[in-house]
Amino acid sequence: MTRTVGILGGGQLARMMVLAGAPMGLRFELFDPAADACGAQVAPLQVAAFEDEAALAAFAARVDVVTFDFENVPARSAKFLAERVPVYPNPDALAVAQDRLSEKTLFQSLGIPLPAFADIRSRDELAARAAEFGMPCIVKTRRLGYDGKGQFRIRSAADIDAAWDTLGSQVDKTGLILEGFVAFDREVSVVAVRGQDGEFRAWPITGNWHVDGVLSASLAPAQLPAAQHEAAIGYARTLAERLDYVGVFALELFCRGDELLANEMAPRVHNSGHWTIEGSETSQFENHLRAVLGLPLGDTRMLGHACMLNWIGQMPDASAVLGQASGHWHDYGKQARDGRKVGHATLRDDDAAVLAGALERVGAQLDRADQVAPVIKILRG
Amino acid sequence: MTRTVGILGGGQLARMMVLAGAPMGLRFELFDPAADACGAQVAPLQVAAFEDEAALAAFAARVDVVTFDFENVPARSAKFLAERVPVYPNPDALAVAQDRLSEKTLFQSLGIPLPAFADIRSRDELAARAAEFGMPCIVKTRRLGYDGKGQFRIRSAADIDAAWDTLGSQVDKTGLILEGFVAFDREVSVVAVRGQDGEFRAWPITGNWHVDGVLSASLAPAQLPAAQHEAAIGYARTLAERLDYVGVFALELFCRGDELLANEMAPRVHNSGHWTIEGSETSQFENHLRAVLGLPLGDTRMLGHACMLNWIGQMPDASAVLGQASGHWHDYGKQARDGRKVGHATLRDDDAAVLAGALERVGAQLDRADQVAPVIKILRG
Ligand SMILES: Nc1ncnc2c1ncn2[C@@H]1O[C@H](COP(=O)(O)OP(=O)(O)OP(=O)(O)O)[C@@H](O)[C@H]1O
Ligand SMILES: Nc1ncnc2c1ncn2[C@@H]1O[C@H](COP(=O)(O)OP(=O)(O)OP(=O)(O)O)[C@@H](O)[C@H]1O
Repeated sequence: MTRTVGILGGGQLARMMVLAGAPMGLRFELFDPAADACGAQVAPLQVAAFEDEAALAAFAARVDVVTFDFENVPARSAKFLAERVPVYPNPDALAVAQDRLSEKTLFQSLGIPLPAFADIRSRDELAARAAEFGMPCIVKTRRLGYDGKGQFRIRSAADIDAAWDTLGSQVDKTGLILEGFVAFDREVSVVAVRGQDGEFRAWPITGNWHVDGVLSASLAPAQLPAAQHEAAIGYARTLAERLDYVGVFALELFCRGDELLANEMAPRVHNSGHWTIEGSETSQFENHLRAVLGLPLGDTRMLGHACMLNWIGQMPDASAVLGQASGHWHDYGKQARDGRKVGHATLRDDDAAVLAGALERVGAQLDRADQVAPVIKILRG
Repeated sequence: MTRTVGILGGGQLARMMVLAGAPMGLRFELFDPAADACGAQVAPLQVAAFEDEAALAAFAARVDVVTFDFENVPARSAKFLAERVPVYPNPDALAVAQDRLSEKTLFQSLGIPLPAFADIRSRDELAARAAEFGMPCIVKTRRLGYDGKGQFRIRSAADIDAAWDTLGSQVDKTGLILEGFVAFDREVSVVAVRGQDGEFRAWPITGNWHVDGVLSASLAPAQLPAAQHEAAIGYARTLAERLDYVGVFALELFCRGDELLANEMAPRVHNSGHWTIEGSETSQFENHLRAVLGLPLGDTRMLGHACMLNWIGQMPDASAVLGQASGHWHDYGKQARDGRKVGHATLRDDDAAVLAGALERVGAQLDRADQVAPVIKILRG
């Protein structure tokens, strides 16, 4: 009866899935090219390239179901596994989400509003489309971008050459896409889960703040107007149904005035959902596992207000956070390295003003007032 | 900077400690005589007898601090370790809690009310004291009892011989104690934590129901009158201060009318505190680790109402629980065996009536109406 879940990718998302599943008696096997993947501290790890079919076949034989901590597993490897063992989300959904162009084309076909976009195949096309969209605009690799990597912001026609020099070499590898720039008021994400039976549940929408393209802080609930909240969750549901998606995913959106514009979909548990560990009845990690195992989904209601702060590069001193009522500490057990997500903290309170006070103290004690400031501003309304 | 916590005993309590500590980046080493200890599924296990000093010395060298999942580790072994590495709770506190006679003598000296008790050294003494206390009364081994084992209930003078035949052989091994029988209305426990700096925090008092001497269900908050609640927490604090206790412990009490009578103290995280994983801001497992590591203690406030149901012998079908909003499943990964604690479930809700409804459905679906009935009765007031 004990079931073993195989996870492709062995980073912090896999680690948190293991820690959410172990209480339920689940076993895990991780698969990652890096021997020092931090998930290996909590579950057995097979070290092999994602393209290594012999290793994938052996892995498939040891597990009951396969899922992902990393969305850029080659679609071919996902399909190879799916011939041997159930794989959730399904490889087709993964393939769509891996490619900004197919993802955005799908959004469009589903009536989900989004910024202008265009497939770019040459410098001339880039120049023409940039002129058409208006500047600023952003050119991105279609595939393999993460944490704001593989992007170039074009501020004026004078930047076209630099953009092409930087990313043009990718045109035949990852492809390129141009996007209209959104002067957003806020960024939010819908973190949601869909079960094998089609049941759909979303957590309250999360507000997100990025620094240098990397998530810095999240706040739930985002305190959007009800109509926007409903619309965003409706987009997520439509998308999940269309992809026959099973598991947790995130839909990132820009808010500009009353407008919501979809940015991208992450086909996995998401950094903007880490607050669900302490802030919701069921965490995104537990619900992802329930979904991929065909178990009933857990309640996604949240308890009060929760703020997640990302630790990038190195872990700060824990005591500032642990000294606050409802301060929770997450250290992924990684080596410090510039730009790397090494851990996070979650602070939670039933009362928004109390949470704001705790964040203020953490910001002051860790010399990170900038990181908490935008969150405090929303909490103090 | 990564700290490793050594745990003597590798059962479900160690397992849940590991799962609470891993998110904070802690590492663990378990020490248990049984190679199949269920904690070994989540942390490295050293298999050796608790008396094996070479193994204990090697263990001490690999860890930064030692604590317990099992209170019956020989006091001598705890002292041996304490000469090499910090050990929390301290071996003297452990020694007191291991022996019902010294524990009860301490309760008495601290003014904590408790049933009559007497050290028993012979059959004649048993007969004389039983007559003095009145029957029913209970004879128990002073040491090494757990889950109601090593007890004999004397209903009338005619039972004295049978009691002595059953437990008399223990008089020179574990010692024997006679206790007055308490016709209690309810059983409750205080689960509390004390830090290295003396800070003390208690979770809301838990109501407990036993079947055949083994915990069957817990409900928090117990819904005691405020005066009793305060008194019980005061006893726990007095006890912890007197023992210079560091870590989580439980004080079990009987309620009879307005009276509170202490039964025993468990010098460790406790089955009646399992609901804190989902039902409290900080779980007993996390706070125990914070205490033994000298970190600030987490908030012990609880969120709504929580009920824990123990699974004894074998795991029932998970879906009845997972199908309830706020149903949480814990499977310790143990082999099924009569009388063994193999897992538990926690159900939580802000609203007592909603929780009662969920328990009723679980009881019906699992054919365990008896297990949930007393909890539902309190919830429906
Ligand atoms: N079209 C746009 N208009 C305005 N800002 C944008 C646009 N596209 C991206 N950004 C900014 O850059 C951030 C990262 O962009 P995007 O989500 O496309 O990158 P990513 O590498 O996939 O990031 P992640 O790994 O965080 O999902 C966004 O959250 C947003 O702040
Ligand atoms: N003096 C008493 N009067 C009435 N009932 C008692 C008494 N002592 C024990 N019991 C009943 O037996 C149960 C188990 O007793 P006790 O707590 O002494 O045993 P234990 O083996 O240490 O149990 P545990 O492992 O659950 O702590 C109690 O919870 C209570 O229901």
